[in-house]
Amino acid sequence: MSERKTRLPRRHLLIGGAAAGTGALGAALIGNGLANSPNHLASAPGTASDTTFNGDARQPFYAKRQSGIETPAQAHASFVALNLNPGLRADGVRRLLKLISDDAAKLSQGTAALADMEAELAEKPANLTITFGFGPGFFQAIGKPVPASAQPLPAFNIDRLRAEYSGGDLLLQLCCDDPITLAHAQRMLLKDARSFSTVRWAQSGFRRAVGTEAAGTTMRNLFGQLDGTGNSPSGSAERERIIWGDQHTAAWHPDGTSLVLRRISMDLDKWDELDRGGREESVGRTLATGAPLTGNQEFDEPDFEAKTSLGFPVIADFSHLRRSRPDDSRQRIFRRAYNYEQLATGTGTTTSGLLFASYQASVAEQFTPIQKRLDELDLLNQWTTPIGSAVFAIPPGCAAGGFIGDFLFS
Amino acid sequence: MSERKTRLPRRHLLIGGAAAGTGALGAALIGNGLANSPNHLASAPGTASDTTFNGDARQPFYAKRQSGIETPAQAHASFVALNLNPGLRADGVRRLLKLISDDAAKLSQGTAALADMEAELAEKPANLTITFGFGPGFFQAIGKPVPASAQPLPAFNIDRLRAEYSGGDLLLQLCCDDPITLAHAQRMLLKDARSFSTVRWAQSGFRRAVGTEAAGTTMRNLFGQLDGTGNSPSGSAERERIIWGDQHTAAWHPDGTSLVLRRISMDLDKWDELDRGGREESVGRTLATGAPLTGNQEFDEPDFEAKTSLGFPVIADFSHLRRSRPDDSRQRIFRRAYNYEQLATGTGTTTSGLLFASYQASVAEQFTPIQKRLDELDLLNQWTTPIGSAVFAIPPGCAAGGFIGDFLFS
Repeated sequence: MSERKTRLPRRHLLIGGAAAGTGALGAALIGNGLANSPNHLASAPGTASDTTFNGDARQPFYAKRQSGIETPAQAHASFVALNLNPGLRADGVRRLLKLISDDAAKLSQGTAALADMEAELAEKPANLTITFGFGPGFFQAIGKPVPASAQPLPAFNIDRLRAEYSGGDLLLQLCCDDPITLAHAQRMLLKDARSFSTVRWAQSGFRRAVGTEAAGTTMRNLFGQLDGTGNSPSGSAERERIIWGDQHTAAWHPDGTSLVLRRISMDLDKWDELDRGGREESVGRTLATGAPLTGNQEFDEPDFEAKTSLGFPVIADFSHLRRSRPDDSRQRIFRRAYNYEQLATGTGTTTSGLLFASYQASVAEQFTPIQKRLDELDLLNQWTTPIGSAVFAIPPGCAAGGFIGDFLFS
Repeated sequence: MSERKTRLPRRHLLIGGAAAGTGALGAALIGNGLANSPNHLASAPGTASDTTFNGDARQPFYAKRQSGIETPAQAHASFVALNLNPGLRADGVRRLLKLISDDAAKLSQGTAALADMEAELAEKPANLTITFGFGPGFFQAIGKPVPASAQPLPAFNIDRLRAEYSGGDLLLQLCCDDPITLAHAQRMLLKDARSFSTVRWAQSGFRRAVGTEAAGTTMRNLFGQLDGTGNSPSGSAERERIIWGDQHTAAWHPDGTSLVLRRISMDLDKWDELDRGGREESVGRTLATGAPLTGNQEFDEPDFEAKTSLGFPVIADFSHLRRSRPDDSRQRIFRRAYNYEQLATGTGTTTSGLLFASYQASVAEQFTPIQKRLDELDLLNQWTTPIGSAVFAIPPGCAAGGFIGDFLFS
């Protein structure tokens, strides 16, 4: 049928207006130059009537690429992997995607979802983004070949993977600056997904709250390290290439990408036994500023040739920085990590760590080579253990009236 | 010995300076009239150098009353109940209290705790408060009679209490606007408490993030209801009497109070089956504004005499508002609730609800009579179930150099 042909022009038309299509407030935010820094607030005490609250900030849903990837990382995230019901086929998957895309479109703009009985909880989107990802079982259900972007990683020696944090057919990634809005949006989506699927796992994480420090400050993880310094700058050609690909490294879809979500357990007690010098050597950066040991400021380029007076490299060969930074500049990833902590009671063990979310055009050409090097040698492996792993193909966005993944059903 | 005598004047001296003793920033906040609304931000885009971030906002620790009670509720809370080790006696309890009081004093002011190996994670206190409470086992360990303020509640018919959310010897209540700061502070305290105790339970909850909406806006719970409207205004004589007591209703200590923490499970699926009219009738308030059904605005006083044209009360006798609002004005409590949600995986059940934290001078004269009425009849009981319950005597604050509970060891 002609649906695919007619959709393309319509999508282009709609995407042209998508940024301005978020209503008067969206336009105002963009006019104020806030569109690129939605984490920034413009509130002042006692002047509620003429200020904008972060609760009203919204991210586009209908666009050529899904939000929640290059969107400046919101304070809270929930990654939920669904198992599609056995026997669910393309028709059912299509219905599910239409339902939850519609929910996500509405909720991200501060509008109640269709069957939303707590409509007031949708009123403050607070930069809510809902991003969908497709795992191997998704493609099997709709009778399509599983793309490379959705294939599980090869086995690594350091992995101690647990089923309860690994795999999944359909990913819902919810990110939001407000935890109440996030909880409500998640419930709405899961309510609509309930007839089609079960929850395989759910992992939530946190970063700095909005307003704690200046927008754009690199997050610290629970080891106290600045985490994500190596990301290429927003808007750069390099970031574009890393996430969305180019002629050399094609993603699954020109406006799609892939997500590798690794749950990395961090042994804080063992880490505490290491002094600051040992910590800085293991990472290759200072704890205070995040600068490479050869530099002074966080974003200084590391100098891997620099030697100490005794002739040893200043940044050790076994350091995390050296091992994770390839000489091949195409082996780069885009990180958007969240901290997690689950406090144990009684004789249980508290687990802390990082939800390491990595986006890249090609898992095999970008993520896997880095991880292989870290698997062979990385001093940080003494304190960190990957305990969950999942890979999802991230489809493009969709036009208004469409749904995420619609191009697969034409 | 004379320790007690010499401590009092010193405490008075120090408390006089406590509000200004939070450093230049604290003074600046107070000067700006922000001291009473620490949830308020004064940040503006692109002017990081001359703005104050919420991460730098701090609440006093050394003061005659503990922070974290009348402090405007921060976005995140963690309530952790410890079981003191069997055999721990007054000496050990005293050492524990000194250690964790010192940690709390430092962390709340943005200073690393003594053995803090991730010092950078302490730098943004973001209104962190750490409040201590004493359960029955605490008093038994130090060989003192258990005060009424720490006695468990009588049994209620509606209760379905679980041991994993109930009781406890020593409560650590951590509240903070930033989840990373909160996680770090909690870890520091538990590290120091580890030789003296085990974690009995830990419960975390959330409210609106700072900046989502105007400071002072009443929170919505996961039913979508405005939650906490009934609290007396900050600074009022009524609030003073409710929390800290007067000559008629004396608290355990003139600057102490008590905390009843109830974990109230909310059946969102069943609630969803009820239409908005039914929901509003069950509560006695409108969902949109929180106004009583006899009023127009959230803080309008309910008119329990008002009748419909058919002669029925506008606010039904079985409504939560009617049942929880006693005719005896002394039966009032101060609420500081947090939402919780634990997403289930597989065939498990997601649990959502409210950490209902209630502070009052006298549990027996304020909390219990209200709860008894709700136990007998409250339409909301159809959708809510108390599954955890704990009562703690909240001691006064302490002077610099002292520790929480020090007056018990003189």
